[in-house]
Amino acid sequence: MWSYSPPLRELQFVLEDLLDAPARWASLPPYAEADAATARQVLEEAGRFSAEVLAPLNAVGDREGCTWDGGEVATPPGFREAYRAYVEAGWPALACSPDWGGQGLPTGLQLALHEMLHSANHAWAMYPGLAHGAYECLRAHGTPELQQRYLPRIVSGEWLATMCLTEAQAGSDLALVRTRAEPVGVAADALESGGEVRVSGSKIFISGGEHDLADNIVHLVLVRLPDAPPGSRGLSLVLVPKILPAGARNAVHCDGIEHKMGIRGSATCVLRFEGATGWLVGEPHRGLAAMFVMMNAARLLVGVQGLGHLEMARQNAWRYARERHQSRAPGHREGPSPIAEHPAVRRTLWRLEALAQGQRLLAMATALWLDEAEHHVEPALRGRARRLLELLTPVVKAFLTDTAHHAVNAALQVWGGHGYLRDHGIEQAVRDSRIAMIYEGSNEIQAIDLLQRKLFEDGCHRFAEAMGVVDQELEAARAEPVLADCPELKPLVHGLQLQVDALREATARLYVGRQDDPTWAYRVADDYLQAFGWVLMGWAWLRTARFAAPRRTDPWYAAQFDAARYGLEWLLPEAGWRLQQVGRRDAILPAPWQG
Amino acid sequence: MWSYSPPLRELQFVLEDLLDAPARWASLPPYAEADAATARQVLEEAGRFSAEVLAPLNAVGDREGCTWDGGEVATPPGFREAYRAYVEAGWPALACSPDWGGQGLPTGLQLALHEMLHSANHAWAMYPGLAHGAYECLRAHGTPELQQRYLPRIVSGEWLATMCLTEAQAGSDLALVRTRAEPVGVAADALESGGEVRVSGSKIFISGGEHDLADNIVHLVLVRLPDAPPGSRGLSLVLVPKILPAGARNAVHCDGIEHKMGIRGSATCVLRFEGATGWLVGEPHRGLAAMFVMMNAARLLVGVQGLGHLEMARQNAWRYARERHQSRAPGHREGPSPIAEHPAVRRTLWRLEALAQGQRLLAMATALWLDEAEHHVEPALRGRARRLLELLTPVVKAFLTDTAHHAVNAALQVWGGHGYLRDHGIEQAVRDSRIAMIYEGSNEIQAIDLLQRKLFEDGCHRFAEAMGVVDQELEAARAEPVLADCPELKPLVHGLQLQVDALREATARLYVGRQDDPTWAYRVADDYLQAFGWVLMGWAWLRTARFAAPRRTDPWYAAQFDAARYGLEWLLPEAGWRLQQVGRRDAILPAPWQG
Repeated sequence: MWSYSPPLRELQFVLEDLLDAPARWASLPPYAEADAATARQVLEEAGRFSAEVLAPLNAVGDREGCTWDGGEVATPPGFREAYRAYVEAGWPALACSPDWGGQGLPTGLQLALHEMLHSANHAWAMYPGLAHGAYECLRAHGTPELQQRYLPRIVSGEWLATMCLTEAQAGSDLALVRTRAEPVGVAADALESGGEVRVSGSKIFISGGEHDLADNIVHLVLVRLPDAPPGSRGLSLVLVPKILPAGARNAVHCDGIEHKMGIRGSATCVLRFEGATGWLVGEPHRGLAAMFVMMNAARLLVGVQGLGHLEMARQNAWRYARERHQSRAPGHREGPSPIAEHPAVRRTLWRLEALAQGQRLLAMATALWLDEAEHHVEPALRGRARRLLELLTPVVKAFLTDTAHHAVNAALQVWGGHGYLRDHGIEQAVRDSRIAMIYEGSNEIQAIDLLQRKLFEDGCHRFAEAMGVVDQELEAARAEPVLADCPELKPLVHGLQLQVDALREATARLYVGRQDDPTWAYRVADDYLQAFGWVLMGWAWLRTARFAAPRRTDPWYAAQFDAARYGLEWLLPEAGWRLQQVGRRDAILPAPWQG
Repeated sequence: MWSYSPPLRELQFVLEDLLDAPARWASLPPYAEADAATARQVLEEAGRFSAEVLAPLNAVGDREGCTWDGGEVATPPGFREAYRAYVEAGWPALACSPDWGGQGLPTGLQLALHEMLHSANHAWAMYPGLAHGAYECLRAHGTPELQQRYLPRIVSGEWLATMCLTEAQAGSDLALVRTRAEPVGVAADALESGGEVRVSGSKIFISGGEHDLADNIVHLVLVRLPDAPPGSRGLSLVLVPKILPAGARNAVHCDGIEHKMGIRGSATCVLRFEGATGWLVGEPHRGLAAMFVMMNAARLLVGVQGLGHLEMARQNAWRYARERHQSRAPGHREGPSPIAEHPAVRRTLWRLEALAQGQRLLAMATALWLDEAEHHVEPALRGRARRLLELLTPVVKAFLTDTAHHAVNAALQVWGGHGYLRDHGIEQAVRDSRIAMIYEGSNEIQAIDLLQRKLFEDGCHRFAEAMGVVDQELEAARAEPVLADCPELKPLVHGLQLQVDALREATARLYVGRQDDPTWAYRVADDYLQAFGWVLMGWAWLRTARFAAPRRTDPWYAAQFDAARYGLEWLLPEAGWRLQQVGRRDAILPAPWQG
């Protein structure tokens, strides 16, 4: 019953019409050849792979899960074959540099691929999903020798990779990491990037820490060197392969896998390093910095996991709600009506539609800024893109995963009691989508990052630039020919303007107010991030409505317009409510009760 | 790690101090002997049973689930023994009439028992939970012969019972029920209450439809007689026992059990009736009316399932957040701090605290009105209590289950990645609590019931009475000695008054507006119910704050006050946002997109 139809037309609309992506790619030297035709072809093939190979393995992966036996992990039936097909089709190389055998395509296409992989099978997509982060770390900070040895096989997908950060006592607080690395053959203070070490300690929550999909697994491990200062400034990054260059097994042991609420086909491993051989990536004690190179991209990808689930819930909820008939809907002469006609169900369906639409545009826009931040030929525009990227990354990660999970959970209600059964797929989507609010920096940490680092540290300069982007859209929608053609836009523009003004004011109050009340911003950070997210959705919806309005004779564009208007009328006002909460400086948040 | 400590002090505070329940019970003839001491003893023993017998079986029930084999269902290990202990302790008889062997205690105590059972083990509590509805149906509508045969053993717990309503094509829409009953020995139009029939058809989603806990299962089955008119007015209620009086097995077959997101230890059965012997309960074609006698109580009980999960999440989240140390909390000199000190976590903890507090008071207040509606000696007060009960029932069912599930889901975030693992219990609570938003009339149906039946049908008279209850509390909190003693109450009173005024105005607009826009109320019914729920929480918090304020030297009362103030300051304002949505008559809800 749960089925997947890749949203190719939606992706094309976003990339080509709303973002003019092919032209913008053309102006970035590495992507000069990524034209619309290439993009369409990539999306089509990614969609086909996701729908035909991965989606059929989604329920079985959940049901069977992974199995651990004496240190070895078996992935669910079919996962191995699907991974082989993925590698053969060249997908791991999509957004990697041609220097290392990659196809060198833009991040937007990688994001679209990820959306589709995660719609089809989140658990499976975890395995290749982590390799890209390792690729980026190594490419930026590995010695040429390490790069030569590992990058080509990571890019080809022959080998997979992990990021080993968390320890039992060190979750959100990486300063508490205890895993140690001892230099081999040199004194601690003589160790250099690429130098050999022996790693000892235990890591938990390592996705893909052990499995049967690839011949080797390249672990990037956060460790502490003997002379390391305490805290997060004393962390180093070390590459520890499962199989050593000479072919022997390294001293990395998988002591078990977790039994989880969802993504049960993804092996979440406890790894024990017992003097395992590794090599330093980047400078000693600069491990966190080395990891930051992949943070923006990784967080965008996690945001898009939310979108993947949302898209799946959207499609399937519409289908079910059109097919299932119960009771006479109000205003109808006869029943039973398709439940899609019942107003409460319709509210949910349009919520899913509007959210998926807005999330996709925001994610893709951010991906373009990511590419421009790295490759734009004009330094000023490169800087602007970098600042927008930095600001929007925590919002995309937290807002997309949060609103997607809650919308998917609301969608379950469309199926009634059937939604609570394994058979229909929606309950698995609720469980699977929950993790994205936690990992890659919990959503609460994203909210703090947004306020304390991204807003306050530069005196809200990045914020002003982002609001400038929204202003541009408001101006474009207010242009006379646009309003003459579609007068319905007028109140929508007004509604968005109200929220933009309120967000600006709240931001200014928080920025000033932090002087005499330094914890205020922390108390309301989650509300602030939500409000910001809704305003960005407002931007996305207004842009969509403006582009779809003149083409509304086509029912597909009419539905895009309806969804965007629904978002602006019914969903955007939540920003106002969130900003009210943000403004409640005087509301008391009591100290913890000691019970 | 997941552990349960019965909230005895909280329950006692609500019943004795906030509701003066013992005195009110004393004025109702059947409960004249239910004094405070009896209540305390019942709560204490119910708490001990829940914590010591049921809570340890919660995780195992989820892990092992039920198993179906050739029509027989085995419950998870330990469930059978726990049920035997429950029966031996006399719990099934708690709120049943002494006429049938019951203990005749008030509904409030039954509700408190249910809260605790569901905190400890929702799946297990499903089995005895359904018997009470059957008891009430039979008591009100069964012939003396059927009552004699079945009531004593249902009351003792020797036999269990089900409600068989849903069919594959008939979920929310019972008018579509097709299961047939053929009269035996008489013409269809001569069939009377108690008359014998043969039942044929299939029912789904039958909780406890088959299991190994009791020797007999009494099914109350919604059927259609041969001469029945179409639609829901043609439904009759029939009692079909698993074991016939002579000892033979009846023609009721369990064709399978569902694999569900949660409450996996509760057997959700497909039942096939193949000319099974049964007897009519109540008049022909009056089956829905016969079922309505148990509807209010059943919906209150489901609301309290939400509270049960919330209480469990509350306790365990506080404990974990006090023990777990990560990062330095803002405003602290050194880290790592207990995560309970981090503002985002504190927001969640106090949300749980305030919600559990408000939900408990609202549920218990409604239970008292239920008892007064049946037993108050003054007809006018009986009528008032009945009207309040009718109005509040859909709110208690939907608001409590919805806010509890979402708060439990938010609580998972306190555990970070650990919350996503089976080991900590919270993810099971998220899954288990989800069902209560669906069954016993989905929350969307409750919202329609609230507006269309409970508000509009009597010209908002019930609504005015309920607001009168809130007004009384506002007045009491405004009294000079109260404010003199606790000036902090003043802004809280003001805040609640604002929301009460807004709710009154929105209600009046909806009531009048339905004339020219008959679907408006349907479009915003869920928002309206939420707003109403928050205002009732506001009543509960103000009342709690008022009673706790003078005793704040005791840290326990100080925490009660803090929670109530947190609710009024941080949570109640959601009513305003919901009412804004309610007021958006002009916002377009597009027709379903035909895709």
